[in-house]
Formats: sequence, structure tokens, C-alpha cells
Amino acid sequence: MEIAIVGLGLIGGSLLRALAAAGHSVTGYDADPATRDLAATAGFEVADSVPGAVAGTELVVLAVPLPGLPAVLDELTGYEGLVTDVTSVKSPVRDLAARHGVRRFVGGHPMAGKETSGFAAAEAGLFDGCAWVLTLEPHATGLPDWLTAAALFTRLGARVVPVTAAEHDRAVAEVSHVPHLFAAALALQLEGNPLAGTLAAGSFRDGTRVAATRAELIVAMCGGNAVEAGNALHRLIGELDEMRRRLEADPVRSLTPVVARAGELRCAWPTPPGAAEEMPATVDELLALGRAGGWVTAVAEDGSKVSAMRPETGRNSS
Amino acid sequence: MEIAIVGLGLIGGSLLRALAAAGHSVTGYDADPATRDLAATAGFEVADSVPGAVAGTELVVLAVPLPGLPAVLDELTGYEGLVTDVTSVKSPVRDLAARHGVRRFVGGHPMAGKETSGFAAAEAGLFDGCAWVLTLEPHATGLPDWLTAAALFTRLGARVVPVTAAEHDRAVAEVSHVPHLFAAALALQLEGNPLAGTLAAGSFRDGTRVAATRAELIVAMCGGNAVEAGNALHRLIGELDEMRRRLEADPVRSLTPVVARAGELRCAWPTPPGAAEEMPATVDELLALGRAGGWVTAVAEDGSKVSAMRPETGRNSS
Repeated sequence: MEIAIVGLGLIGGSLLRALAAAGHSVTGYDADPATRDLAATAGFEVADSVPGAVAGTELVVLAVPLPGLPAVLDELTGYEGLVTDVTSVKSPVRDLAARHGVRRFVGGHPMAGKETSGFAAAEAGLFDGCAWVLTLEPHATGLPDWLTAAALFTRLGARVVPVTAAEHDRAVAEVSHVPHLFAAALALQLEGNPLAGTLAAGSFRDGTRVAATRAELIVAMCGGNAVEAGNALHRLIGELDEMRRRLEADPVRSLTPVVARAGELRCAWPTPPGAAEEMPATVDELLALGRAGGWVTAVAEDGSKVSAMRPETGRNSS
Repeated sequence: MEIAIVGLGLIGGSLLRALAAAGHSVTGYDADPATRDLAATAGFEVADSVPGAVAGTELVVLAVPLPGLPAVLDELTGYEGLVTDVTSVKSPVRDLAARHGVRRFVGGHPMAGKETSGFAAAEAGLFDGCAWVLTLEPHATGLPDWLTAAALFTRLGARVVPVTAAEHDRAVAEVSHVPHLFAAALALQLEGNPLAGTLAAGSFRDGTRVAATRAELIVAMCGGNAVEAGNALHRLIGELDEMRRRLEADPVRSLTPVVARAGELRCAWPTPPGAAEEMPATVDELLALGRAGGWVTAVAEDGSKVSAMRPETGRNSS
């Protein structure tokens, strides 16, 4: 397949390597000339502009941060191929693509990353085994387009998760954005409190680890998903307030069941996958799979069926 | 020194090993006959009762959980030696000791532990480098008694932290008890939410790790320190609510400084110690040291001075 990748940081660069290694004809572009040189020196096809990179391709992967998307979408006017992206929030990108008149769009979010960033850190194996959300909107996303993207990324080893943009944004608010704010709130307790720092041990270390993430990244994630992050934070504040009432009332009787249930859920996570299954490639079946925590592992040649896996039944509700 | 240890679990058993290895004459007791057999078989002096264990000793270490303390204290009536404990909350134990007429009491809390428990897991090196709170109450704790306990435990390699029971309870609520409740609240989001489980990654894994702790232990910690844990939870709920307002108003401008400050504090933790210092062994000096996050590393023979360390100046307020 002829593919263009716009943005050659950790994700875009790794995708350039992985797709080229899988035999595709890939052209990369990055706004930074030094990054373009780096990619060209590494032996990859590199263009000098967005239009130059996308000309003649069937698929464009937008691998720039959310604030950079509008400018790139401006340069895609008239592009007839399929467009996908890799940013961590999906409803705003869906709306942005619609406003820019992108005709064929499938939002994407590979849950991959590592401590380092930039093209120099890119590696072809980054997506092996990672969850890769591809958004599927009833009556909006073209199912053949979705299956094309799913086939491409499953062949890189990714677990392709079919969900709507709204479902994605809610889930990542819960399991990623709010945990970053919790870590920050816990870390702030060190302010003017050296005794706390001296007595802090394992629970503090783990609970605050991601507070050390660059502030711009945390704010971009949470701010780009402000409504869902705010909702999730609101729900969790309610949960903590309820725990406080239980703690003050009768901890042993009323707090124990809550904490015990949390422990069961945490011990059952991550839930091992059940047996491989085959299912018809319909929008309803795919969305039901995603809601059940399942993922696509392969797409049949004719696009009629997918291979899938889901968490082993009953493990999460024990 | 002649020492008795009541309770031979992980902490009591490790202390039995460590103090015997340091040349003290130590007698152990545990309510469980099988544990007594285990300790006796390992070559330690073991008594058949609390009075039998403490007879003729200068110091008793109470190494039983908080709910077991009243029964043991009942059996110490008339004991003339020094009494210390190792439980994770200090104000309730201080009050308990007073109600039981313990004349010489210094509350203790070694911040040591590991995944396993029981005498079989005990090891002499458990306290090497660990923070060991010893409570010092102006006008109540005998300074010579405090220094006796401090000398004993610093020789096991512990960093002895001098604070009041109230200061201890507030700090551990902040850096240990509330982090366990935060982890539980985050883990509860998995309830009926398999998609969240599939998309959860590093921030969720670390932020929820201690939710897998046994529920009884979490509830005993938080419930035994209910007032301070409730206060710390209340403060943090306020912090999270403030973050939510900033998120909904203008994340880049108003959330960034908060998250950036949290990151600075986390990156500066744990603060490396500054140079070793000598200071007079007075109640005021010791409490000021503890409030500054410092600890005693040795006590002079004549009890007039201590060697101490504290976090390197300025690192926590950068």
C-alpha cells in the first residue's frame, strides 16, 4: 500500500519503520528539517512538504500532536485517500476532520509509548501487542475504510479496539487522564512538608510516579479531553467523598467491602484473553466487541469477517 | 540490654533476629504456639507468656497489631521498664498506653515491610536504612527513654525520626493512607467497564498497585487513623475539585502551573540527605529536626548529643 506519514516523532517514526519493514511504500514528512534529514539518512523516503508526501498515496497517518492537526488538515484539502491519526483524544479530532472536509476518516490511538521521544527513539516493534483504538462511528465511518486500517495495524501486531470516539474519550479519561491528576494531587502534598517526604514509601512512590511526566503533556491530554476528564474526575471525587463518609462512620463495616471490591478488580486486571474467535465484520458486532473489552487480531481478505479476542469471561466480574 | 519482644510476626521476628545479632539478650513471645515453636527452633529464647517474657527486662517492644494491644497492655501492669511499639498509628497507642498506666512509653513506627509476612519471612537486615519514627511528646516523653530507644534502633541501621504522635499520624495519612484510598477509587472504575481495563496502561497500573493490598490491612491503617486520614482525604478532594475547575476554565493557563509544580516536587523526591551534623539532644532540637524531614543516625554515649542528617537544603523547595 502507498502510505504517507506526517510527523516523524516516536509514534510516526516507529510507524515509518514498521510499515516499511512490512513491505509498504511509505513516505514520511516532518515540519522539522533536522528530523527529515535523520529519516532520510536512515534510508527512508522523505518528502519536503505535506502535499509532496501525500501525493499518490491511499492512506495518510497524521502523527502530529493535537495542536498541530489543523495546519496539516489545511494542507490535505482535496485529498481523496483514507486519513487516520494517532492522537490521544478522539472526539475533537473527529470534529476537526469533519470541519476540514476530510471525506474518509478513521480516528486512531495506539496505546504505545516509552520514556524517550523523537525519531531517534523510534523502533519498528513499538506496536507489537499494544492496544490500538480505531474509532467506528455508526452511520459516519465507512466500514471498508475501518477494515483497511484495522488490517494494516493488526499486521504490525497491534490489538485493534473498535469503539466510538465518545467511548474512547470516556475510557481514557478514566484510566489515563484522571490517574495523572491523582498523582499530581498526591505529589503536591510534599509542598512545605519535608516530614511527609521522609516518611513516604512505596504507596506514595507508585501513586505519584506519573506526576513526573512533562506538565505540557499532562495538560494537553486532560485539556484536549476536558469534558470527559472533568466528568471522570467528578465521579471519582464523589467516590472519595463516599469513602470519607464510610471512614468516619464505621470503617470496618462500611469501608471494608468497598476496598475489598477494589482489590478484587485490581487483582483480576489485566484480564487474560479468552480463546480466539471469528465474527462477522459488521459495525454492531465490532462495537459490541470493543465495549466488551475485546479487540480485532486480523481482518479476512474479503473483509467479511474478523478474528478477535476478548477478556476471559467472568474474570472481571468475580 | 535485656529486651522482650511481644509478637513475632514479620516486624517482631525481624527485630528478634536483629537485636540478638547485635548482642542483646532478647526473649520473644507470640500468642500463637506454632510461631513460638518456630522461633525456639531457630535458636531464640522464647517464653510461654507475656509476664514470662518481660520479667527482668529493661525494654519491651510490642509488635502486635493495634487491636491486640489492649490485651497485651493488661498483662504489663506493674512493669517498670521502657515500653515501645511498632504499629502504624501513634496517637491512639499513646492514649492506650496512658490509660493502661504505662509509666515509660515511647511510641514507634518502623517504615519497613515487604510482600510477605510472619516469622518465617523475618530477617535481621529489615531495618537497615529504613525510617523509624519514635514519638517525642514535650512534657510527657522522658528524653532519656527516647534516647535509649533511639540509640538501640539507630544501631540496627534505622533512620530514627523524632516527631509527636500527632505529626506522625498526619504525615502517614498523607503519604500512605490516602494513597491507598486513591488507588482503590481508581481500581473501582473497572467495575462493569471492560473497555477501560483493555485501554488501561502504565499510569493505571502504578496508580492502582496498592489497591491489591489485603482489605483488612488498608481498613486497619485508615480506620486506626480515621481523623487524620479523613482530614487528608478532605484536603485532597478540595485539591482535585480545584483542578477540575482549572480544567474546565482554561487548562493551559490555569492547570499547567499546578501540574508543573507537582512534577517538580515529585522529581525532587526522595531528597538526598545533606551532610552529617551533630546537635544537642534536646526535645526542641529533635522535634525541629523531625519537622525538617531529618533523622537521628546515632546517639552519643552520654546522651548529650546526637548525630543527624536532613534532606539537602533547598531541594524540596526548588
